[in-house]
Amino acid sequence: MNGGGPVPVTIGVDVGGTKVLGVALDHEGKVLGEARAPTPAGGHGPGMHAVLATIADVVDRLAATAELTAAGSAGGVDNAGGHGGFPLGAGVPGLVDSEGRLLFAPNLPRAEGVDFAGGLAGLGGVSRVVVDNDATCAMVGEWRYGSAAGVANAVMVTLGTGIGGGLVVNGKVVHGAKGFAGEVGHMVIFPDGRACSCGQRGCWECYASGTGLGRLAEEALDGGRLDGVLALAGGVRSAVRPEHVTQAAAEGDRGALEVLDELGWWIALGLSNLIAVLDPEVVVLGGGLMQAGDLVLAPTRRSLARLLEGGQRRPGVGLLPAALGELAGAVGAAVLARGTTRDMVVQGGAY
Amino acid sequence: MNGGGPVPVTIGVDVGGTKVLGVALDHEGKVLGEARAPTPAGGHGPGMHAVLATIADVVDRLAATAELTAAGSAGGVDNAGGHGGFPLGAGVPGLVDSEGRLLFAPNLPRAEGVDFAGGLAGLGGVSRVVVDNDATCAMVGEWRYGSAAGVANAVMVTLGTGIGGGLVVNGKVVHGAKGFAGEVGHMVIFPDGRACSCGQRGCWECYASGTGLGRLAEEALDGGRLDGVLALAGGVRSAVRPEHVTQAAAEGDRGALEVLDELGWWIALGLSNLIAVLDPEVVVLGGGLMQAGDLVLAPTRRSLARLLEGGQRRPGVGLLPAALGELAGAVGAAVLARGTTRDMVVQGGAY
Repeated sequence: MNGGGPVPVTIGVDVGGTKVLGVALDHEGKVLGEARAPTPAGGHGPGMHAVLATIADVVDRLAATAELTAAGSAGGVDNAGGHGGFPLGAGVPGLVDSEGRLLFAPNLPRAEGVDFAGGLAGLGGVSRVVVDNDATCAMVGEWRYGSAAGVANAVMVTLGTGIGGGLVVNGKVVHGAKGFAGEVGHMVIFPDGRACSCGQRGCWECYASGTGLGRLAEEALDGGRLDGVLALAGGVRSAVRPEHVTQAAAEGDRGALEVLDELGWWIALGLSNLIAVLDPEVVVLGGGLMQAGDLVLAPTRRSLARLLEGGQRRPGVGLLPAALGELAGAVGAAVLARGTTRDMVVQGGAY
Repeated sequence: MNGGGPVPVTIGVDVGGTKVLGVALDHEGKVLGEARAPTPAGGHGPGMHAVLATIADVVDRLAATAELTAAGSAGGVDNAGGHGGFPLGAGVPGLVDSEGRLLFAPNLPRAEGVDFAGGLAGLGGVSRVVVDNDATCAMVGEWRYGSAAGVANAVMVTLGTGIGGGLVVNGKVVHGAKGFAGEVGHMVIFPDGRACSCGQRGCWECYASGTGLGRLAEEALDGGRLDGVLALAGGVRSAVRPEHVTQAAAEGDRGALEVLDELGWWIALGLSNLIAVLDPEVVVLGGGLMQAGDLVLAPTRRSLARLLEGGQRRPGVGLLPAALGELAGAVGAAVLARGTTRDMVVQGGAY
């Protein structure tokens, strides 16, 4: 039923280390419904992998919402569960192969090896499945409806527990030869540096992510430079969270602002590498860290201006927050689900 | 005269820090002639910039050769100087904008700011001009006729005095938003590391280039680990060149082999970053350092296998020497000259 024209409603799910976030998206990019659930701690249950079961639950809740909405707005049940069903897109963190299997996932190791495409294809009401890297999904969301709309060369960087990346080059989404492109968090930017969950040392995501901010805060606490932050955590050092740093910075705490300056430098370092390699028009920043907004963005911009090769002689590069915020990945997954396969998206030039 | 069908002969010139190397290339990729000249040390002369004058000389010599050959093989003078002339491609090191001006060139500072496209367009016998980054030209040469032939996702890295890069993504050459893509040598891989000629610190090209090899050799000489190399340089430390290291390594000198192992590790570090970001099928290595062949390639391959994210779980990436050797850049420039503008090449998908 959905083979030819535009698909009225698709569902997109963003599988993160802490939560599964889903949206139902109409053909104009309107979010008809949202649903979320904590990412389960376990692995294989009696029936299916726990992560797949959680996705199934989120999809069920969205389908119920979207079915009603679609029936109302499109005037029919063409898109409802019983008639062809909903296309489903899923973004998962790590190396996803072109068959939709999660091969390697340092930030979601319990789902490593899971055949997401196969597992989700069997869900009730789902007509087809597209699985892709979570940050690539976020790039697609921002490219279609957000800060990189209409741009031919763009980079998306998601700053969360780790760092993910998605790329648009020459007007097409980049997957690379085997589907692994965009693993920007695992650029090594410090030989023999901090140990990364991927097994290497000195990866960018050890320095410029939420985890990296935690480390910078620890160092500043050691140096007695974060007393204001410590106070926000009730004076208990082990209770200090990255959010306390951004909160203190928002209140003008000097030590906290200095930590965010350092963080911005590390973020800018990796961004300058990506800009050197890809020369995008726009770099979009998303992920949990960007909830701090300008507190993170402003020092990043300042450092980036100094770090870019030929800085004075080259035009600037736009550095923008994700317009879709935390929904970017789920929206992009829903956009990808409009195509039959992700290869169509790459080669068809539709996006 | 050359507007429609294939152009029988084009000329490509690769402008390096030490020499200008040109080829005349026929429509099947056969090199009809080669010419070279030392890159001049000066800047502006009485008439034109000294680098442009040297290119003009190389082009003149090639045109004379190719005119005869083309007249002989194509049975006419359609392609000769008097009838439409030769399309000319030029590869120059650094940031080249889309109008063919060299904006920033840490390894050829005396040509910085030169309008290559404008300056070369006035040469006698030249029908049109395409100017691009030298490593992007090398990528095009290897993609059309060399180690990356037929591949949809490839990376070219030229290891010379500095490090250049060229990219093919989704079956198209990548120039980026402003023509600056592929500046892989200026990825920072060591914060606050060695001072780079670009003004930053810790760029990859400070460690993994010919210059980097020189530094590694100095450190090894300091440690008394390169006595065999020192002997090859007549016992005069200031006379030690990178070639002495590779020569000693070829003869089995343990200290020299250890230095090349270190160099291979630094090369692999940057390559693993590029593979993380782009996931190419093939990485092609060219430039002067690759004249040492397997002495550099073998240790690079060993380190790369250890450095790749998810190494055991992802299929390997082909790492190959440039099949066209030192001609890759000039051949690629000649290939690019077949199109009216480089944008045609990018958007037409012909290559």
